[in-house]
Amino acid sequence: MNSIEIITKKKNKLQLTKEEIAFMVNGYVSGDIPDYQMSAFLMSIVCNGMTIAETIDLTDIMIQSGETIDLSEIKGKIVDKHSTGGIGDKTTIVLAPLVASVGVNVAKMSGRGLGVTGGTIDKLESIHGFQVETTKEEFVKQVNQIGVAIMSQTGNVAPADKKIYALRDVSGTTESIPLVASSIMSKKIASGADAIVLDVKVGSGALMKTIEDAHALAHCMIEIGAHYKKPVKCVLTNMDEPLGYAIGNGIEVIESIETLKGNGPKDLEELVLTLGSLMVSIALDCSKEKASEMLQESLKNGKGYDKLKELIAYQKGDINQIEQDPYISIKSPESGFVTKIDANQIGEVVKKLGAGRMKKEDSIDHGVGIRLSVKVGDFVLENEELLRVYFDGQDVSVQEILDCFTFSQDVIEKQPLILEIIE
Amino acid sequence: MNSIEIITKKKNKLQLTKEEIAFMVNGYVSGDIPDYQMSAFLMSIVCNGMTIAETIDLTDIMIQSGETIDLSEIKGKIVDKHSTGGIGDKTTIVLAPLVASVGVNVAKMSGRGLGVTGGTIDKLESIHGFQVETTKEEFVKQVNQIGVAIMSQTGNVAPADKKIYALRDVSGTTESIPLVASSIMSKKIASGADAIVLDVKVGSGALMKTIEDAHALAHCMIEIGAHYKKPVKCVLTNMDEPLGYAIGNGIEVIESIETLKGNGPKDLEELVLTLGSLMVSIALDCSKEKASEMLQESLKNGKGYDKLKELIAYQKGDINQIEQDPYISIKSPESGFVTKIDANQIGEVVKKLGAGRMKKEDSIDHGVGIRLSVKVGDFVLENEELLRVYFDGQDVSVQEILDCFTFSQDVIEKQPLILEIIE
Repeated sequence: MNSIEIITKKKNKLQLTKEEIAFMVNGYVSGDIPDYQMSAFLMSIVCNGMTIAETIDLTDIMIQSGETIDLSEIKGKIVDKHSTGGIGDKTTIVLAPLVASVGVNVAKMSGRGLGVTGGTIDKLESIHGFQVETTKEEFVKQVNQIGVAIMSQTGNVAPADKKIYALRDVSGTTESIPLVASSIMSKKIASGADAIVLDVKVGSGALMKTIEDAHALAHCMIEIGAHYKKPVKCVLTNMDEPLGYAIGNGIEVIESIETLKGNGPKDLEELVLTLGSLMVSIALDCSKEKASEMLQESLKNGKGYDKLKELIAYQKGDINQIEQDPYISIKSPESGFVTKIDANQIGEVVKKLGAGRMKKEDSIDHGVGIRLSVKVGDFVLENEELLRVYFDGQDVSVQEILDCFTFSQDVIEKQPLILEIIE
Repeated sequence: MNSIEIITKKKNKLQLTKEEIAFMVNGYVSGDIPDYQMSAFLMSIVCNGMTIAETIDLTDIMIQSGETIDLSEIKGKIVDKHSTGGIGDKTTIVLAPLVASVGVNVAKMSGRGLGVTGGTIDKLESIHGFQVETTKEEFVKQVNQIGVAIMSQTGNVAPADKKIYALRDVSGTTESIPLVASSIMSKKIASGADAIVLDVKVGSGALMKTIEDAHALAHCMIEIGAHYKKPVKCVLTNMDEPLGYAIGNGIEVIESIETLKGNGPKDLEELVLTLGSLMVSIALDCSKEKASEMLQESLKNGKGYDKLKELIAYQKGDINQIEQDPYISIKSPESGFVTKIDANQIGEVVKKLGAGRMKKEDSIDHGVGIRLSVKVGDFVLENEELLRVYFDGQDVSVQEILDCFTFSQDVIEKQPLILEIIE
């Protein structure tokens, strides 16, 4: 067996054996297979696909490449949630305490981000003092004590995925159903999840460009889950404009708090309730309707917010000290209905402000960001506030920001946020 | 413009602009684009192809990456010949002096090889004293004096192709019509050829697996040639068994000499006459039939052989001292018609003996090789000689060699060597 033969086989659209996939993945982790062979191999998969059998093999090999975390000491089913990544997506910060507030344990390990903003862990670090590192024992103990923990990915989970993911990011090989599915599932299964709820973003700015691709990804993940006897449920969501109003780190935490207080953006609340009711219905074995009622009650009576305060306090954060820079207000150049807010382009602006990382080693600026004052479909008057830019002395190109917006004199029909639920 | 966007564009089967292709190729040459991005980019081209316009752009960018050689001081048209690579292919060593012997100047720059055996230059170095390095001025002078020179590629011709070719070799991205066509054409055009005759090998062991692919490559090269106003003619040849009997370096030179003396293998002679008559007909603007007659005459009256002697003497070689190790004779294990001689597998054995390079830095053993005693279609008796292994103390696995042969009790219909000529 040699790497060129295996690459050539996939290039020729043939199905690989588990041994061949293992040869490539393990050889890459050990350093025997160089980056340039792995990236060519990954591109051959991107172009020619993988069967479900191959994808399950790849997932399994990535799981086996590291340790698997045993969360059996936590009471009840551990339902994990994952998003394929969106602009302004602070769902986890709202969802985890909300679900925990109805009595379902949430043991969440999250990552840092290479995206437009930081990942959940970076966002939470906007809270002064908030600790994200812990031991497995402390993690389990916290969940059993207060029902929720959000920690930085601990230990050596799926190191093969980590190394391959980093290469995909810099070699144009991110968009591939088998690669995305195996990457997500290997991490989730190795992290000890009993079930997974997945938020698949769909749209021109998302990893999945079309509803067909999103369907395919959902079904692929459901089949991988079935192989491990772990239920997977997928919510396909529209990703044409940013989620909520805030895009940044600290300002997203503040928006999350507002949402748990019942004053959040409608789209964020809808998404949290949809994902949350799937998680709760699996964990408590009840209907989604019943689960949704419980979560809505928790939003109303403040129990979700109380749980977030408990979580922040337990992890040594000070909820009254969240980083947020001063802002300037940007006004609308015209009157009209907002027909488009280009999520990716807004994301690029926010990244340039310093909210995200260009390279792994970069540090991020927790206080910067953009807070929209309007959503798609809203009517705005000339000179009315369109958005706020939170910044710390950086250059801000107003024109670049205004270019993200499109206006029209006609009312537009807004696409629904939740496109489909696949179970 | 950035590399990931360009890779993603080709991944999504979109057509690239010349600026985008130049960004990738020149960035790779300068070291700004790393191997792992280039190999992913190359694989996206392998999988999704390139239009003729893109392929011409790529060719042009590779030509511009280095110097172009001006051979205008040589009298007459310079018709270059190239082969996509075959086992036992010593055509150039026969063809160059034979064509020169009928009054057509041959200015041949050849490469060393990373294949089963060395390239033409390596093979010629089996001749004691033979010099392959020269200046451009000396090269031109030699062609004008004796009508022929075979030298190692001089100067900095298409360095982008050189660097990309080396990466393709180790990343499973060799088999691609636009990449093969642009690689060959950029070198040939930068080397000053007025016209090109191409030998496209077809078969399971060749770069082009099917006659359809070979057609496509031929037409692609003809179109690139048309863009530069340089005629390209392609001969599609069958590559199921080795060409001629000898596979090695020194023993291939000896077979070449025998061929010029009129005692060569029929297939090699047929190929030389076919390629040669195309070259001569372009250079002298005569019919192929007329050109073929002239070449056959030169084989008969020894003028081709005389020209080879002149060439070797001019380049300081001693034709009486050609490296050739002692041999052992391997007998046929059974009686029957030879139905198959696996060219690639034989090639691997010869490479292991030391006739070829595993890595660029490796040195070559000029004396080793395999000389077949039979060709496909021949009848052989049990214990009759099947082949000779020339070696220098290396391990020889007789079984591995015998595994390259298939026998049958029935007469087989042999495929023609020349499948098609595309002009």
